[in-house]
Amino acid sequence: MHIQKIEQLTHEKWLNLYAATFEHHGHVGRWVYASRRPQPHAERTAAAVIIVPILRPPSIPPELGGNDGGPRLVMVKEFRVPIGGYSFAFPAGLLNPGESIEEAARRELREETGLEIVAVRRVTQPLYSSTGLTDEAVAMIFVDACAVPQVRANPDASEDLEVVSLDFAGLCRLCDDRSARIEAKAWTILYLYQQLGRLP
Amino acid sequence: MHIQKIEQLTHEKWLNLYAATFEHHGHVGRWVYASRRPQPHAERTAAAVIIVPILRPPSIPPELGGNDGGPRLVMVKEFRVPIGGYSFAFPAGLLNPGESIEEAARRELREETGLEIVAVRRVTQPLYSSTGLTDEAVAMIFVDACAVPQVRANPDASEDLEVVSLDFAGLCRLCDDRSARIEAKAWTILYLYQQLGRLP
Repeated sequence: MHIQKIEQLTHEKWLNLYAATFEHHGHVGRWVYASRRPQPHAERTAAAVIIVPILRPPSIPPELGGNDGGPRLVMVKEFRVPIGGYSFAFPAGLLNPGESIEEAARRELREETGLEIVAVRRVTQPLYSSTGLTDEAVAMIFVDACAVPQVRANPDASEDLEVVSLDFAGLCRLCDDRSARIEAKAWTILYLYQQLGRLP
Repeated sequence: MHIQKIEQLTHEKWLNLYAATFEHHGHVGRWVYASRRPQPHAERTAAAVIIVPILRPPSIPPELGGNDGGPRLVMVKEFRVPIGGYSFAFPAGLLNPGESIEEAARRELREETGLEIVAVRRVTQPLYSSTGLTDEAVAMIFVDACAVPQVRANPDASEDLEVVSLDFAGLCRLCDDRSARIEAKAWTILYLYQQLGRLP
């Protein structure tokens, strides 16, 4: 398959629609997609980071479940304008210019949850959110975190979010809850731990 | 948070850009997002299905690895116009009007890979691809599949895809391959099986 040209259909600040003309085995088609990038196809870097944070006793603060059990997985329940309601996901955010994935993860986790990264377990390559719809690529970072008593979560004025923490039984309930709106990558992580039978 | 109004910015056939005006604690903001729906926020159903197919011996055809080992995970390596290159993902497609998730999964799996579903292991609730960018919701279906000798994969003229099957060692290599472009939900499923230590 060969892309012949790309036309920018809108000129918004954060997200735009593009139409690509492609040729494949003599068939010429048009594919419309969304992108946050000023130059589509110019790079393969992650534009955002998704943080999968695990709290381990005795570092779990009372408001996130306390130290009466095993490790807890931290998520956010956030109002998302595109879906017009609250959804469960992991703390996440766009990278600032020049910021590394780990730097962005430390900043976003602190801002959204008041938590601090104490160990980085794995950082993924850029992963594509929905390859038929957008070129959005995100890196995931699996971390251990702890609460910093003097730091409070400090969401943007445009953010409406609640920090939740889940023990193993709680994450299994959320994974199976068909009434909850859950971000797809977050659901597969819940399913991972459910299938593993424990938080790592 | 409260959404005050939604304005449709484009009038394309398959995907459009919308701008929502929202109010939160006295702050009024504008959020631009992409949607395939004619009526944004009107429903919470999945528009597409993603199939996670596992082949088990002795049903594995020679071209997908044969019967010399354990189960194999089937993926597609497909040219995706939005990212301007080939990416690894699971077989997937949009639901036709009136089609159930399982019906769409059977049709798409047969069309894209020539495989037939023989057991459904799990069907998820609608899961959101990227809640800051789009209202796209997809259901995932975990299945056992087998090859049907007289059926050949029959992709659309606009599709440029190759069916690949992975044993456990192969899926671990792909999960760790930082040069491969991988769809995010697909990567987390690879990571699930890598962490489990086997295909289920």
